[in-house]
Amino acid sequence: MADKKMVTIDGNTAAAHIAYAFSDVAAIYPITPSSPMGEYAEQWSSTGRENLWGKKVDIMEMQSEAGAAGAVHGALAAGALTTTFTASQGLLLMIPNMYKIAGEMIPTVFHVSARSLAAQSLSIFGDHSDVMACRNTGFAMTCASSIQETMDMALVAHLATLESQVPFLAFFDGFRTSHEIQKVEEISYDDIRTLVDEKYIERFRSRAQRPEHPMTKVAAQNEDVYFQGRETVNPYYDAVPGIVQKYMDKVAALTGRQYHLFDYVGAPDATDVIIIMGSAADTFEWVVDYINKKGGKVGLVKVRLYRPFSAKDFVDCIPASAKRIAVMDRTKEPGALGEPLYEDVVTALAQQGRTGMKIIGGRYGLSSKDFTPTHAKAVFDFLARDDAWHGFTVGINDDVTGLSIPVGDKIDVTPEGVVSCMFWGLGSDGTVGANKNSIKIIGDNTDMNAQAYFAYDSKKSGGITISHLRFGKGKLDMPWLIDHADFVACHNPAYIGRYDMLSALKENGVFLLNSQIPSDEVFEHLTKDMQEQIINKHIHFYNIDALDIARSVGLGSRINTVMQAAFFKIANVLPETEAIELIKKYIKKTFLKKGEEVVNKNWAAVDAASAALVEVKVPETITKSYEPKRLIPDDADDFTKNVIERIMHLEGNDIPVSQMSFDGKLPTGTAKLEKRGVAAFVPHWDSTKCIQCNQCVQSCPHAAIRAKQITPEDMEKAPATFHAIKSNTKNDRGLLFKIQVYTEDCQGCGVCVEACPAKEKALELKPIAEERANGEVENCTFFEGLTYDNLDGLNMGTVKGLQFKQPLFEFSGACAGCGETPYVKMLSQICG
Amino acid sequence: MADKKMVTIDGNTAAAHIAYAFSDVAAIYPITPSSPMGEYAEQWSSTGRENLWGKKVDIMEMQSEAGAAGAVHGALAAGALTTTFTASQGLLLMIPNMYKIAGEMIPTVFHVSARSLAAQSLSIFGDHSDVMACRNTGFAMTCASSIQETMDMALVAHLATLESQVPFLAFFDGFRTSHEIQKVEEISYDDIRTLVDEKYIERFRSRAQRPEHPMTKVAAQNEDVYFQGRETVNPYYDAVPGIVQKYMDKVAALTGRQYHLFDYVGAPDATDVIIIMGSAADTFEWVVDYINKKGGKVGLVKVRLYRPFSAKDFVDCIPASAKRIAVMDRTKEPGALGEPLYEDVVTALAQQGRTGMKIIGGRYGLSSKDFTPTHAKAVFDFLARDDAWHGFTVGINDDVTGLSIPVGDKIDVTPEGVVSCMFWGLGSDGTVGANKNSIKIIGDNTDMNAQAYFAYDSKKSGGITISHLRFGKGKLDMPWLIDHADFVACHNPAYIGRYDMLSALKENGVFLLNSQIPSDEVFEHLTKDMQEQIINKHIHFYNIDALDIARSVGLGSRINTVMQAAFFKIANVLPETEAIELIKKYIKKTFLKKGEEVVNKNWAAVDAASAALVEVKVPETITKSYEPKRLIPDDADDFTKNVIERIMHLEGNDIPVSQMSFDGKLPTGTAKLEKRGVAAFVPHWDSTKCIQCNQCVQSCPHAAIRAKQITPEDMEKAPATFHAIKSNTKNDRGLLFKIQVYTEDCQGCGVCVEACPAKEKALELKPIAEERANGEVENCTFFEGLTYDNLDGLNMGTVKGLQFKQPLFEFSGACAGCGETPYVKMLSQICG
Repeated sequence: MADKKMVTIDGNTAAAHIAYAFSDVAAIYPITPSSPMGEYAEQWSSTGRENLWGKKVDIMEMQSEAGAAGAVHGALAAGALTTTFTASQGLLLMIPNMYKIAGEMIPTVFHVSARSLAAQSLSIFGDHSDVMACRNTGFAMTCASSIQETMDMALVAHLATLESQVPFLAFFDGFRTSHEIQKVEEISYDDIRTLVDEKYIERFRSRAQRPEHPMTKVAAQNEDVYFQGRETVNPYYDAVPGIVQKYMDKVAALTGRQYHLFDYVGAPDATDVIIIMGSAADTFEWVVDYINKKGGKVGLVKVRLYRPFSAKDFVDCIPASAKRIAVMDRTKEPGALGEPLYEDVVTALAQQGRTGMKIIGGRYGLSSKDFTPTHAKAVFDFLARDDAWHGFTVGINDDVTGLSIPVGDKIDVTPEGVVSCMFWGLGSDGTVGANKNSIKIIGDNTDMNAQAYFAYDSKKSGGITISHLRFGKGKLDMPWLIDHADFVACHNPAYIGRYDMLSALKENGVFLLNSQIPSDEVFEHLTKDMQEQIINKHIHFYNIDALDIARSVGLGSRINTVMQAAFFKIANVLPETEAIELIKKYIKKTFLKKGEEVVNKNWAAVDAASAALVEVKVPETITKSYEPKRLIPDDADDFTKNVIERIMHLEGNDIPVSQMSFDGKLPTGTAKLEKRGVAAFVPHWDSTKCIQCNQCVQSCPHAAIRAKQITPEDMEKAPATFHAIKSNTKNDRGLLFKIQVYTEDCQGCGVCVEACPAKEKALELKPIAEERANGEVENCTFFEGLTYDNLDGLNMGTVKGLQFKQPLFEFSGACAGCGETPYVKMLSQICG
Repeated sequence: MADKKMVTIDGNTAAAHIAYAFSDVAAIYPITPSSPMGEYAEQWSSTGRENLWGKKVDIMEMQSEAGAAGAVHGALAAGALTTTFTASQGLLLMIPNMYKIAGEMIPTVFHVSARSLAAQSLSIFGDHSDVMACRNTGFAMTCASSIQETMDMALVAHLATLESQVPFLAFFDGFRTSHEIQKVEEISYDDIRTLVDEKYIERFRSRAQRPEHPMTKVAAQNEDVYFQGRETVNPYYDAVPGIVQKYMDKVAALTGRQYHLFDYVGAPDATDVIIIMGSAADTFEWVVDYINKKGGKVGLVKVRLYRPFSAKDFVDCIPASAKRIAVMDRTKEPGALGEPLYEDVVTALAQQGRTGMKIIGGRYGLSSKDFTPTHAKAVFDFLARDDAWHGFTVGINDDVTGLSIPVGDKIDVTPEGVVSCMFWGLGSDGTVGANKNSIKIIGDNTDMNAQAYFAYDSKKSGGITISHLRFGKGKLDMPWLIDHADFVACHNPAYIGRYDMLSALKENGVFLLNSQIPSDEVFEHLTKDMQEQIINKHIHFYNIDALDIARSVGLGSRINTVMQAAFFKIANVLPETEAIELIKKYIKKTFLKKGEEVVNKNWAAVDAASAALVEVKVPETITKSYEPKRLIPDDADDFTKNVIERIMHLEGNDIPVSQMSFDGKLPTGTAKLEKRGVAAFVPHWDSTKCIQCNQCVQSCPHAAIRAKQITPEDMEKAPATFHAIKSNTKNDRGLLFKIQVYTEDCQGCGVCVEACPAKEKALELKPIAEERANGEVENCTFFEGLTYDNLDGLNMGTVKGLQFKQPLFEFSGACAGCGETPYVKMLSQICG
């Protein structure tokens, strides 16, 4: 093979790279987290990239996943090598066609970034519920645990389906693997070509339905012959494990990475063995190592070919010394005796006559619940107990049925030399994008490995983001969130007092804060708890006014490149000048399509960062500190206190089962409780310039700016800072008018400012702290309590219950913060 | 409870009776074999039948099963008690909504007549593939094995879902149970009402989404809380087995029929035990009895609550003496270690620590493959062998992977006093309808039990039908086709020499033939094999010219009531006069909607039957006999000989696995091979009256009448009986014209005769034997071999490749034979 080509990519890219090679057609319908596979393939197709046979792949976007599956089936039947990418409900919609494709023995590979199914609630995150719902369809199923494996197993699947004629579903963990970025070896199409036997391609094409050789398919069979027809496929399925192993060996010869249908890792004389598939297999591998180094005797079986399940190969790889087995399933099937992998393991051991072992099953990591080495260790500790029960859960507190197991103190399995960094950002503030560039800079320009994972909630833009970056010389298959960090950056000062950012920081770690507070005062603006942690753990605390730089170079509130430069300066992973050069190079790559000017602004921001970075002198004892206000009223109901408030503080993982509703039901109107206060700048209303057109209200993507008419009686009770002006509407009641900005809901995007049509704009962005000091938080509360008065007579009504004087479907301004503005739709919903 | 009300109904009626009681709404989309449930419910609704709360059920037909599931979900969420009826692919389309309904813990019952899934081929017949594809959804699942159980288990499911809040899927075997008719006890709505606790209804309604108490559902949960949310349901699922047992006990108190989650039947010290669910459980019960009476030690566990699967209850009911277990699955999951029930049994035994037994799994009865006592005995014989393998199949010859087990000589478990009757008819000749009346007459008017099952292929009308009727004083839960008959009737003489009708007939049995052959000659018109069987088994042979009677009273070829009367006379199940009175009563009930005249004609037919029935004097040795012609040409290809020809002879069950295509692929154009010759009368063309309009050709629903222009040269080689006339088209080639009737393809419906617009009709129905004697079979062959000549210039072209002068979408005549005539569609397909 040619020289290894290392690339820093995510799991979706790894899968799409192989799928593209083997496909004439990809019929798709996007669904998180599989969408990027389709997007990459489409991008490659549109730029003329060629598959193994020198053709562009035809990408067809259908009306739904059901349509995509039908198109796949049709294209395959017509003799086009076809693939698709999907997950979750999308995969469910493909089930009918999957039975048909498997029944007709048509080779294909479906690439699935496994995701939860909507049950009590929808979730976009990852687990194996969706692929397990397809285990009956007759598809073979492979599982990969990391980015590199995703590429390797996808290749094995594509080769094996062509020879075996059994269709494959190649899956990997949604988000954890699909969206994680790692430095991996890209297998070149030239190398792949050496593994493809053209006779299987020819056989596939010769089986197609063509006018030249007509045949009947999808006919009806009656009770006399259907059963026999169903049994014809047995030899093909029997052959699959051998074929898959053969291609695993060939891929090993090519790449040096050897896989087996089941891979055992651990002590040859292990007493306690875990069976698992997916990313958490790697977590367990670290912990097996950790425990065995301390004298333990444990091991781990990674399942790579789940269907057909080869009982002999499976049982053969379990050490004879094994006494206890825990089977870890990342799914839940209420009503079953256990989850699917568990039942398969019990059955395989029974079939092979391996008795006398204790076998229990457990659930973990549903919907991307982070599964850490500490959890893995807890499983081993639990398994060794005499009273270890089947059906346990790990990673939650089940105070209802008591199935959860105890989890001990956090352990750190990270080897020396790996640097772990966390970046707390605001969705769409550029933090994630900058960190993607950072990890590529490190991956592509050093001999270090590099890994990045971006945790964000389903709010996506506008929500919180935490970037987890690791780099170092050893292997970095660490599919869990960083809980022992060398470096923590807070890109948004609003997070102080709201989130616990410092617990994960190690002794002597670095904390970098973006704030507008002078560096000699900033320590006093931390909470007491933060101060204590900084002092006790000897944390190096840096402060930078990135916002000031961003604004001064014309980037508004886009502080990402400033923070990136500051990170490289502190982390010292590359010499500062080289780092700056590379940052600038990647900035150019990323932003050139937006124009030279944007590139230059970002370059200027990078240049200014170094000088603005200040190491804060940490006092020896705590000083006066910031006391965060409680996010919800003291008289809030139990659900708000026990669930919503904790989720707001990112403590949702600690919410016990008993606090969750059993049917996914929630109270309405809870969004109003989430006062996030994340905007650095919020609009200030100048009543003297306002023409009362209400376009600011109408344009706000987050409904954070409102208008009301106010009676003189109400006005008498207003706070001192609450200004209002005479209303323009025709009325004889002396009504007043006020535009109120909801400072804590505002995202600071400035759409309202742009929308203001007054000659002298009545809105202007001002620092949030200033507006808070102006009493605007209290003003909001007072305003909220006012009785709505009819705004009829104004150009356009804008608040709930009012009639609109003009249709509301023309304006299409977008929030510069989150980029999304279906605001016309929002308004029509509100005003319904 | 009130007096028992016995009714003679099918399984779909039994399920719908209960579903209707408990529902405000049923959202449906029909799919065989579940459609009748929806149809019954709709009929009841339209005639004002009331549910338990005095309301009519709202029936909503949606655009697909996906829509039906969505409507069910929506109606449930809005607080309406809602049900649906479905199967197979239809059920697959409901899976996404099923996860949601279960996730939201909404009580409902889906009634499913379990059916195969389309894989290598579609099949409308029954097995458990569809319900097994839903075992992951979180629905509880109950299974019924007979009509009575279908009603009883449906009731248990509806009661249990209301208390447990877990949704239920209540299933029973498609066709075998859904379409079988039995005399069962109907549980009255008054009795049901005593079992319903209104507080559960109120709780259900109070959980609905209503404007009065708004709440949020189907929200998104993130990785922090989804897992906890998913675990909230554990206590509810844990409670289901207890709740189901409680209602089983309550139903037992009401009806006297006691069920358990798992019911063991057989020797208390059995060594060999079968685990099974569905109708074949009853088959096994007969065989357990049969074997144990001969000194065997065998038993059987009937699974009634499949999900949640209660391991303890299951293992508790297996005798301590059990050494060998065979788990019978009516589904196939290629790639799995075994089918689902098998894996569950292995897991349950392991969990409960019951070791030291041999456990194997087997497949049977896929797609309604008949499962007989002989097969059940074969399973026990096989299980006792030391080399009994897992993954066996029974009922087929697997000469590819050798998984099928040997089946011994046929056994007969039918007790004394049960009369078994088979009626061979032509789909839509009225045989099935008349037999439905017959079994109701016996069920409703005697103290005997009664059972009827109607075997027909997916051709439905126009195909062959075999009605299997049993009656007698004992229990009749015999869910297999009759293979030991007391009475066999052949309603269509075309079946002589084509199908083996007499093998199933017992010593001294009765054979009733409808033929137009005089009774003193008819023996010579049987095949040699039939003659031997009649003589050797001392069979009483009756002949009747039912066609003559039917025609003479104005019923055309509708011979059903004549044959029914003849059956009652011979079977002597009721005194003849009483029987005739009842037949007439049921005729009136069935046909009154078609007018008094139709009733009178049928009454006249019944009156004439007795006199026309002749017992044939059977000679002591065979005489000259009918030698059937081979149905296919001798030079046909292997597929035609090995598959098609055998299927034509109803010997498809004997086709081994090796002869079936592995991907469901078939050659095209095989329909032409199936020369069925089932019409008693076929049209005769009178060339002198023909106006060459071709409307007969166009109107034929089976494309069995064709026109061609013939060159004078071709005409020279024509058989002597091949008449043609001068063509009306403008041509200078002396072309001739001929209408050819394909006697062996014709169904004898007479649509062509009606369509003929000539003043004096050019077509007239004549006995097929006459036309055969006229050489029309040979004429067809010659006609077929002629080169098509362009019919352009005629009013309408009709044969392949010709242009039509008029659009073809106006005519809508239907075949009187099969009742179905999408003939315009057929033509446009042919002429594409």
